[in-house]
Amino acid sequence: MTEKSLPRDALEASLRRIGDERYHDKHPFHHRLHSGECSMDEVRAWVINRWYYQSSIPMKDAAFISRCRDPELRRIWRSRIADHDGDIGSGGGIRRWLKLAEAVGLDPEYVASGRGVMPATRFAVDAYIRFVREEPLIAAMASSLTEMFAPAIHSQRIEGLLAHYGFANEDTLAYFRRRLDEAPKDVSFTLEWVLTHALTRADQDAALAALSFKTDVLWAQLDALWLGYVEGRTPPGAWRPGEGLLP
Amino acid sequence: MTEKSLPRDALEASLRRIGDERYHDKHPFHHRLHSGECSMDEVRAWVINRWYYQSSIPMKDAAFISRCRDPELRRIWRSRIADHDGDIGSGGGIRRWLKLAEAVGLDPEYVASGRGVMPATRFAVDAYIRFVREEPLIAAMASSLTEMFAPAIHSQRIEGLLAHYGFANEDTLAYFRRRLDEAPKDVSFTLEWVLTHALTRADQDAALAALSFKTDVLWAQLDALWLGYVEGRTPPGAWRPGEGLLP
Repeated sequence: MTEKSLPRDALEASLRRIGDERYHDKHPFHHRLHSGECSMDEVRAWVINRWYYQSSIPMKDAAFISRCRDPELRRIWRSRIADHDGDIGSGGGIRRWLKLAEAVGLDPEYVASGRGVMPATRFAVDAYIRFVREEPLIAAMASSLTEMFAPAIHSQRIEGLLAHYGFANEDTLAYFRRRLDEAPKDVSFTLEWVLTHALTRADQDAALAALSFKTDVLWAQLDALWLGYVEGRTPPGAWRPGEGLLP
Repeated sequence: MTEKSLPRDALEASLRRIGDERYHDKHPFHHRLHSGECSMDEVRAWVINRWYYQSSIPMKDAAFISRCRDPELRRIWRSRIADHDGDIGSGGGIRRWLKLAEAVGLDPEYVASGRGVMPATRFAVDAYIRFVREEPLIAAMASSLTEMFAPAIHSQRIEGLLAHYGFANEDTLAYFRRRLDEAPKDVSFTLEWVLTHALTRADQDAALAALSFKTDVLWAQLDALWLGYVEGRTPPGAWRPGEGLLP
């Protein structure tokens, strides 16, 4: 028996419900970070590991373009790569991230090298790139819809970090400030596309599962940080406090 | 026994020799096209099939970026996608190609739909995307080095088409004219990169094999055109004269 497809409103509501239930703004590590309870070493571990995620996003978006036969969709999607990578010489979001790395006392070259990233971070992020490269197009697109929930967490983060940490200022948090403008543009296009194209129940379920998968990718990264740096059970090969600091 | 690595000059000479021996400017279909011997239906078959190749190039370049951890290399490579896809609304090389399609009497929408493309064309082009997505980075880069040989064939093509066909003018051949500027910029960077990074004999052999593979991708497309439209043995599903014409 095939289930009936969802009306457009119900599909959008189901997508948003995934955010309410599973987005990583619910994770205790974020509460800890935004309320100023993280030690500087916990902040550093977060910056190092999140670098791997941030700097992989253009690879993920390129993976999407690599399977996209529609030139207009490719043209639209390409702006995501430009937002993160920026132009030759200048750089974009990922260079702004290295500003933050420097502000928390890390050597940006160490951070950019990816040394010290936790294996669990790599597994989660690499799974995301693979997902976008291999899963059906509608799922690949829907997996980016966590951007629907991002502006709220970015705002909380800017506010929380500014209130509690000396390293935080408009310059060092420029990455998040900029994402407040970029993400809504991307998400309104993608949400509209998914709502318009996911018409069968099978495609709608695939879109919902993809968004749920993406929340797993984000959650797993914070779980790894919690165990490794809040609980102090740092796995072999991962960054240890004192390493990779600015000279 | 491991073979000794080649000096830089010898590697470059070996790469160029592959062009001398295997590049598709040696294929009889090109002689036929450039000398004005192709019937208009043969020209149309070429335009339809080469569309599939042209419009896949941004997917191939995105596949490259999707596996590239170096942001600066990604930034440099991204200009290739921009050259072909252009910007939202305006379009780049692939839109210029549709100008040519119209000039030879084909409905650009039919051409852009990819209907009528020969299966052998798809197999060859899709193999190229897969190669760039999966093979070692040095091979993925070296496979684009057919651009070393492209300016000569583009010049011959512009000259030959202008001399022999009524549809040919600066406007309809804009795709090739533009590539005369774009390709040398790309190739000088890529050649330098390959010569600098392919230092072991194993990597050098992989680079040579990749370029040789790419010449196969191009040659196979012209073989398919020859059998299908010069010899008239058109496979099931492929374009037939009279289909997809401008209304």
